[in-house]
Amino acid sequence: MLTPVIGIDLMGGDFPPETLFENLLDFFRERPQKVRLVFYLPQALIDQLKPLSKKNLPDDLEISFVEAKEVIQMEDDPLLAIRSKKNASIPLGIQDLSKKKLNAFVSLGNTGALIGASKVTLKTLEGIQRPALLALLPTKIRPLAVLDVGANVSCSAKHLTQFALMGVAYQKCLGIENPKVGLLNIGSEKRKGRSELVQAYQQLQQLNEENPSKPFLGNIEGKEAFLGHVNVLVTEGFSGNIFLKTAEGMTAYILERILDEGLDKHKESSFSSLARDLNYAEYPGALICGINSVVIKCHGYSNGKALYSSILGAINLVSTGFIEKLKEKLSLDL
Amino acid sequence: MLTPVIGIDLMGGDFPPETLFENLLDFFRERPQKVRLVFYLPQALIDQLKPLSKKNLPDDLEISFVEAKEVIQMEDDPLLAIRSKKNASIPLGIQDLSKKKLNAFVSLGNTGALIGASKVTLKTLEGIQRPALLALLPTKIRPLAVLDVGANVSCSAKHLTQFALMGVAYQKCLGIENPKVGLLNIGSEKRKGRSELVQAYQQLQQLNEENPSKPFLGNIEGKEAFLGHVNVLVTEGFSGNIFLKTAEGMTAYILERILDEGLDKHKESSFSSLARDLNYAEYPGALICGINSVVIKCHGYSNGKALYSSILGAINLVSTGFIEKLKEKLSLDL
Repeated sequence: MLTPVIGIDLMGGDFPPETLFENLLDFFRERPQKVRLVFYLPQALIDQLKPLSKKNLPDDLEISFVEAKEVIQMEDDPLLAIRSKKNASIPLGIQDLSKKKLNAFVSLGNTGALIGASKVTLKTLEGIQRPALLALLPTKIRPLAVLDVGANVSCSAKHLTQFALMGVAYQKCLGIENPKVGLLNIGSEKRKGRSELVQAYQQLQQLNEENPSKPFLGNIEGKEAFLGHVNVLVTEGFSGNIFLKTAEGMTAYILERILDEGLDKHKESSFSSLARDLNYAEYPGALICGINSVVIKCHGYSNGKALYSSILGAINLVSTGFIEKLKEKLSLDL
Repeated sequence: MLTPVIGIDLMGGDFPPETLFENLLDFFRERPQKVRLVFYLPQALIDQLKPLSKKNLPDDLEISFVEAKEVIQMEDDPLLAIRSKKNASIPLGIQDLSKKKLNAFVSLGNTGALIGASKVTLKTLEGIQRPALLALLPTKIRPLAVLDVGANVSCSAKHLTQFALMGVAYQKCLGIENPKVGLLNIGSEKRKGRSELVQAYQQLQQLNEENPSKPFLGNIEGKEAFLGHVNVLVTEGFSGNIFLKTAEGMTAYILERILDEGLDKHKESSFSSLARDLNYAEYPGALICGINSVVIKCHGYSNGKALYSSILGAINLVSTGFIEKLKEKLSLDL
């Protein structure tokens, strides 16, 4: 296989780009991967980081830099920013992705700008009106794909149904033969929630009638999602974001309590395994699902480990031909 | 103080009423409370449970029964049900509450019917257009009051501002001098989220300008809520319900993992303290806030312990004169 080429945008996170860069290289030294990383950075940072990229680099890791003359700030208006700052890391990276100079792009930057640039430059896949942010979360059985976790604050029933199709295709690509779908709602009855959810319920039931594997299991409450009975959780971006952030917040709170109480001391390996399963940094950032390439948005609070996990996730999607498979599965519906 | 009289509706939960009844009495035997409980039940169940209520009853506990000739099912249309089944436990209990035969009412039944009957019979407080369900959740510092957790699937900015006022009054009644308020959103910027949230942000900032204690801290993400910096989390009922159920689901999942990994073995007392803090059954059910009496809705999956905690919560609100204080605080605004 050819070496995957992954574009990286370190600007806009909670940690300084230089800290993330060094931290990331440490992870590659520990767990080497065959990959070429292209960093989009202001010239001053390139000058500072280039020497570091030549020290003790593992054999399989190649690093190069592209100058980004402008910076899109987190508080910038996304659509205005991608029009007026064409030389910032996000527009440059997405351009290189569309020109096939990159196989995937991983960014910590302004979410709206990243989604906007992806939609405009890379286009959405056939049959998909709006891209959705897809995140993986731990459950009792195996990771759950939740979409949308924040790209669209409100969605029509049609959009939600398309998210279901994308989620199923995604989990099939990850090896689940018949992924099950749930609709995030505040009760299991089919009339629960806002009108678009009631309609989406009907549309998804319709898909069940056309499909012998009956993927749609109905409405799912936040509480049940962690049991792992569904593989895909469909929601508009507002509730999806609340779901994701609440799960992360509660997890962080409990893990801290466990450490405070000294519960980890007795069985350190068990605690490590629990903490690893629950640590967001072990999961790739959110995939912008429904566009014609692999673009991953990392949390603003991502550390080097989270960035490393996102790069691994991108390598995995690229090397398994995710986009081609997604197109194929989408054309077959559920 | 006079003995508080609490009406109890055991119908509609996941556990059979007879199991809940016996389990509840066990808790009163362990941790006695001076209270009179009035159970609204079908005659057949009264006949079955009456003999049990006479065995080994603690001195301070009085028990009586009222026959409910009809049963409102969980799947019944709420407004239709309260009109057509006037002799079911919910309408009967709420009637007795309005006639001051009860000081509070605790129910496991149909949420919509309970809220509907409360609104129609007990009326909302002055200045409050819609009641909200208020639940307490654990945080790093002290329990957080979240409202609305499910009474209204959508709300105007005005409703959200009223929820903030009620939440502040509630936490003041629980002893917090200057409760801080956050608006549940998907980012901290004031333009984040749906239009009603952007408006509510402005209205709450306006309240800050009129109030020297500056209670409004801005938008809060699901992740930050557990840090305990805010005492009141304001949201419409759909997102609030997702927030609550996700927190509960994640907690249940992690506690189970801790037990599976044997992490509890080493420091059982620490684990018990953690599990107690995180166990929903240790917190009262959701208060229907904004009506002219104390009505508590327990989860459908409540066990005897959760029911006991809800009764304690009701006794506490009654004995501290919560409704009178709430009216007084509301008339003073924030």
